[in-house]
Amino acid sequence: MAEHTLAEVRRWDKQDSLRDFRGSFCLPKGVIYLDGNSLGPPPRAAPGRIEAVVRGEWGDGLIRSWQDAGWLAAPARIGAKIAGIVGAAADEVIVADSTSVNLFKLLVAAVRLRPGRRKIVLEAGSFPTDRHVADGVAALLPGVEMVAVPAGGLHGALDADTAVLQLCDVHYRTGARHDMAALTRAAHAVGALAIWDLSHSVGAVPVDLAAAGADMAVGCGYKFLNGGPGAPAFLMVARHLQAEARSPLPGWIGHAAPFGFSELYEPAAGVGRFVTGTPGILGLAALEAGVDAWLGADRALLWEKSARLFDLFADLAAALCPSLALLTPRAAAARGSHISFRHAAAEPVMRALIAGGVIGDFRPPDVLRFGLTPLYLRFEDVWQAVAAMSGIIGQDPNGPSRRLLPERWLNLAHWRSGQ
Amino acid sequence: MAEHTLAEVRRWDKQDSLRDFRGSFCLPKGVIYLDGNSLGPPPRAAPGRIEAVVRGEWGDGLIRSWQDAGWLAAPARIGAKIAGIVGAAADEVIVADSTSVNLFKLLVAAVRLRPGRRKIVLEAGSFPTDRHVADGVAALLPGVEMVAVPAGGLHGALDADTAVLQLCDVHYRTGARHDMAALTRAAHAVGALAIWDLSHSVGAVPVDLAAAGADMAVGCGYKFLNGGPGAPAFLMVARHLQAEARSPLPGWIGHAAPFGFSELYEPAAGVGRFVTGTPGILGLAALEAGVDAWLGADRALLWEKSARLFDLFADLAAALCPSLALLTPRAAAARGSHISFRHAAAEPVMRALIAGGVIGDFRPPDVLRFGLTPLYLRFEDVWQAVAAMSGIIGQDPNGPSRRLLPERWLNLAHWRSGQ
Repeated sequence: MAEHTLAEVRRWDKQDSLRDFRGSFCLPKGVIYLDGNSLGPPPRAAPGRIEAVVRGEWGDGLIRSWQDAGWLAAPARIGAKIAGIVGAAADEVIVADSTSVNLFKLLVAAVRLRPGRRKIVLEAGSFPTDRHVADGVAALLPGVEMVAVPAGGLHGALDADTAVLQLCDVHYRTGARHDMAALTRAAHAVGALAIWDLSHSVGAVPVDLAAAGADMAVGCGYKFLNGGPGAPAFLMVARHLQAEARSPLPGWIGHAAPFGFSELYEPAAGVGRFVTGTPGILGLAALEAGVDAWLGADRALLWEKSARLFDLFADLAAALCPSLALLTPRAAAARGSHISFRHAAAEPVMRALIAGGVIGDFRPPDVLRFGLTPLYLRFEDVWQAVAAMSGIIGQDPNGPSRRLLPERWLNLAHWRSGQ
Repeated sequence: MAEHTLAEVRRWDKQDSLRDFRGSFCLPKGVIYLDGNSLGPPPRAAPGRIEAVVRGEWGDGLIRSWQDAGWLAAPARIGAKIAGIVGAAADEVIVADSTSVNLFKLLVAAVRLRPGRRKIVLEAGSFPTDRHVADGVAALLPGVEMVAVPAGGLHGALDADTAVLQLCDVHYRTGARHDMAALTRAAHAVGALAIWDLSHSVGAVPVDLAAAGADMAVGCGYKFLNGGPGAPAFLMVARHLQAEARSPLPGWIGHAAPFGFSELYEPAAGVGRFVTGTPGILGLAALEAGVDAWLGADRALLWEKSARLFDLFADLAAALCPSLALLTPRAAAARGSHISFRHAAAEPVMRALIAGGVIGDFRPPDVLRFGLTPLYLRFEDVWQAVAAMSGIIGQDPNGPSRRLLPERWLNLAHWRSGQ
């Protein structure tokens, strides 16, 4: 703390070129929001845009808005914007469904592009839904099996029987990040395809699917893209695979001519064939507001500030909360934009933090997780959050942080015994 | 027309017990909206509810709203309300994904409940997405095939090799309605399951899944439920099948303990296991506003007015537009709540109607389709719509309708030659 005083981090905030972007988001007073990795806050433009969709496009335009208001084009239009964030070509990304449903579609499509191969390789201990979906695919496709191995064993698990390597780019609990290019190369070296789940990296850290040679990807709209609760997700199929890749969920909106109402399914020419049913327009409107807000910022500045927020959090926590064990790798290239700690009393500590207005999250059994989102966080937010945590954990009862704590936190001493 | 003068139908409107419900919907001035079977208009409560979700629940509550604002409970809560509309028990219906994705989940689950049987039987010429999805399922599951037969051949197509009979309750083009109870009995008689797609019947006509003994159902939120463009869809699994039925799309929100983050998939106890990814909250909020508006009306009155709107439309069209061939059965029990006509110039006629503010829709190759929604339509709307159509088709150039037409319609004479 001696190194980073409150006065000092306030100076950083004043000098921060991104400081005005905070005004582009709705954030409640009295809250320090460190959970943008779970649900980003509303862009300030979102309520107005959504109202315009509800009253103007839905209410006045009615059914005509599918054409006149660009509703039908929205999945591809927003997909193209997201493509620019993840290093894909504009016609390689489409918005549709949820991350889980999209992963299902791509996993089945990928396995079918590698007939005769049995294995879907993924990381043990990664986000459960990815594994559930792979289990579901393995249960459907005869002979296909899901193989979950620890991160360190991934290279060794790839072989001539591997159809797909499916990984989360950034780990939801630890924040650790894979080397996407190296693992994709390893998958290709054995003739397998690589599918990346970008849910915890899109908008948070640099992603370059093209440079990595990634075959397919999925990702989530409601975290660092600030697209709203349960925002529509996206999927990417590299252009050279699009003609051959077939969705196991063919639906009318993925048809080459949806309004021809032909009974014969003819998939749309490009990635649009991976849309299934009618897209949810309200969710798309909020997502587009989030993506547009993100695109308004200079991404080099975003990555730099994200790294500085992380370093500040890690340094302060090491000084003030020594009972926290940092789970996330320190090197910026080896991690996402959230920071995680292990602590025996993680759950009550997080509950106390939230009760006091510092919102992070708890992941069982013992992980405290904080999202560090450079678009709307101040360095002071990080300083205050660590100070609050220090007060709760009680490592520094006479330190400066104590004076910053709301009175009600001082009644939480019984939790400290749970450490 | 002699039988039903404008003055007469205006009297009906004055005496209509449902007339005040029109005020519960946002409808643009100068438009007669006969496309609520494609996209219902916004309930007047929708903009405010959605704004409260965006600013209050998302903006102020942030991540906390998953619990505090009932977001996690929304799919089951709204499902229970829809259950009451379709004759299912409250714990048999859940809101999730799109109709197509839901149909995929149920078709696979149903086929697996009938191991050894090969056939999914459906109706040829019904809504294409249902057939596309069945095609997708047949392509995934070895030995399973999709068999499409004309409506009249359905009973004959059911045999001991049939796993599932999958039908749209009301036909999207013709408005014809199946006898759900009889066809479900026929499916059961051969040991098959029956899955009903209620997209064109839910909220439009009486549906009683329990009385029919239906096993499963899916349906759409954006038509007669007025849930907004691309509203989330719903699915129903009869209680006695819930323990055994497994979704081929297992995702974290369908897990028995989503926030345990267990890698082992343990499906939720009931129909909730058919939710896959994170539900889209904005779409759910709009859908709930639509469902609530519907539930505010007396359903016996709705069904009765729906039948009268239909009869008025059919009678006026027969008198004023004899070149229209009625496609929809006249008997209320044999149809949905839209009326369809075949006409050689259907496409330009519909374009002219829309240009003049009468919004119905065209379904290729030659169908004019009009949704008759008793919640917000007046008898006068039907009268004016038929009068407008008569002016366009030109069957009654000196009739009273002509005087009601906007000047621009009178320039459409060239289309008449296309009849």
